[in-house]
Amino acid sequence: MSIAIRKASREDCPLILRLIRGLADYEHLAPMAVLHQEDLERDGFGPHPYFHCLIAEFDGQPVGFALYFFNYSTFLGRPGLYLEDLFVLPEFRQRGLGRALLARLASVALENRCGRLEWSVLDWNQPAIDFYTAVGGQFMDEWRLVRLTGKAIDALASGHPSAPEPAQ
Amino acid sequence: MSIAIRKASREDCPLILRLIRGLADYEHLAPMAVLHQEDLERDGFGPHPYFHCLIAEFDGQPVGFALYFFNYSTFLGRPGLYLEDLFVLPEFRQRGLGRALLARLASVALENRCGRLEWSVLDWNQPAIDFYTAVGGQFMDEWRLVRLTGKAIDALASGHPSAPEPAQ
Repeated sequence: MSIAIRKASREDCPLILRLIRGLADYEHLAPMAVLHQEDLERDGFGPHPYFHCLIAEFDGQPVGFALYFFNYSTFLGRPGLYLEDLFVLPEFRQRGLGRALLARLASVALENRCGRLEWSVLDWNQPAIDFYTAVGGQFMDEWRLVRLTGKAIDALASGHPSAPEPAQ
Repeated sequence: MSIAIRKASREDCPLILRLIRGLADYEHLAPMAVLHQEDLERDGFGPHPYFHCLIAEFDGQPVGFALYFFNYSTFLGRPGLYLEDLFVLPEFRQRGLGRALLARLASVALENRCGRLEWSVLDWNQPAIDFYTAVGGQFMDEWRLVRLTGKAIDALASGHPSAPEPAQ
């Protein structure tokens, strides 16, 4: 039994797509995963990739992935590594694949002088929360993520009137 | 009285540094802001920038900034725009500068086919929360941000033993 972590290539996009859909299903968010294989090919493996991806193999079989990109901490004046997706097929868990992916990401973070390695977890996913706590994760619960999508972006871009900005 | 939003250049780094420190002070996080001007010059204005920056001017005077980068949504198969910092000097608020910065960011998001425009806010910053609600922001409170720093990254990268990964 052997675990290997390798960089993903363009040829892995069908595999990455299946794993992303598997993750969305696990997170009860399957209808949200509307991506196509061509999106991954264009955005991850073109001249200016938006993301990077690692594949975890068990006995030569690809069974998990980690997809990440670099963010930036203005307070540290250093980049950070943001882990967007981490997923191992359920039947291959508890064999060290998730840990091996995280360990490789930590190495990538160090190689790129990142001050932080960050990701997000759904508040009901207690097994994952326990795992992340065990590896030293701090939960930044004083920060609330705000998201604009679709028409709200359009309205803002077009100068649609709204409330005044805060005084302080 | 006129408002103008322009792209930052390398020559703006001393200004950006002052504004970042002003933001850190406002967030009661001043000791966390350990960056230097050289960090901004290297990471924002070299051949492979980690971030982009807009400057807000009021009557020709620079009084605010927005610093952002692109993240990636695997569910959408599209990049997103993440706003790391938004700040206007206190004495220049309620004049539309914050809104003008957000509006320009919304345009940048559309130009880059971003599916989302996201940022984070401290849970006690009610004036900002009210403003973000007014512009259509959704608060993604079911997501918890997890952060590894320093020794936790080193330990993970070096294979330091820890708890088993979750079964499900």
